[in-house]
Amino acid sequence: MSQFFTEPEWPPSLAELKNVDTLLRCAICFDYLNIAMMVQQCSHNYCSLCIRKFLSYKTQCPLCHLAVTESDLKNNRALDEIVKSFKLARHELLKLNLESPPMSPQI
Amino acid sequence: MSQFFTEPEWPPSLAELKNVDTLLRCAICFDYLNIAMMVQQCSHNYCSLCIRKFLSYKTQCPLCHLAVTESDLKNNRALDEIVKSFKLARHELLKLNLESPPMSPQI
Ligand SMILES: [Zn+2]
Ligand SMILES: [Zn+2]
Ligand SMILES: [Zn+2]
Ligand SMILES: [Zn+2]
Repeated sequence: MSQFFTEPEWPPSLAELKNVDTLLRCAICFDYLNIAMMVQQCSHNYCSLCIRKFLSYKTQCPLCHLAVTESDLKNNRALDEIVKSFKLARHELLKLNLESPPMSPQI
Repeated sequence: MSQFFTEPEWPPSLAELKNVDTLLRCAICFDYLNIAMMVQQCSHNYCSLCIRKFLSYKTQCPLCHLAVTESDLKNNRALDEIVKSFKLARHELLKLNLESPPMSPQI
């Protein structure tokens, strides 16, 4: 991420799209899910790298603490595809001037 | 669905949001996923009712034909939440006049 710009915010008029944005993010790294893995017993999703790192530290779901091992992880490909299209959709909406412009560069 | 109106189309300027829309639909009934169930071995998703009906007829994934039984189905709750917010997001965008208006009622 650029050190000069924060990510553009969703305007209040698109509050529900902002909800979709949040649902597509990993609760460990806060970035968009990257190779989304679903914990089959609780349905929580994380980036493959993020959850594997976490599980090497503690064998539980970070969000709900259910006991979890790597074999419980299943690739949630629909989320990967949705993240891909949603990122591009943000650009489309930006072009239509619906999102606030990025902040001015800080010196 | 109303007999007089078709669902509003996504305009070409929002082609990627249309992709997201498609990814949130069930390949059996073509409606938005309703209680999305993921087939764990292939990551395909369907409405819970749709896939259970299908499996009573043929124990395979409708899309890729991998052998599937009901125990392979896991609730994909993230998709359920995204569908909920996305449907409301459509309304928001409609209000901002980005989508074509619904077709005129047919007599
Ligand atoms: Zn992550
Ligand atoms: Zn969990
Ligand atoms: Zn269905
Ligand atoms: Zn399949």
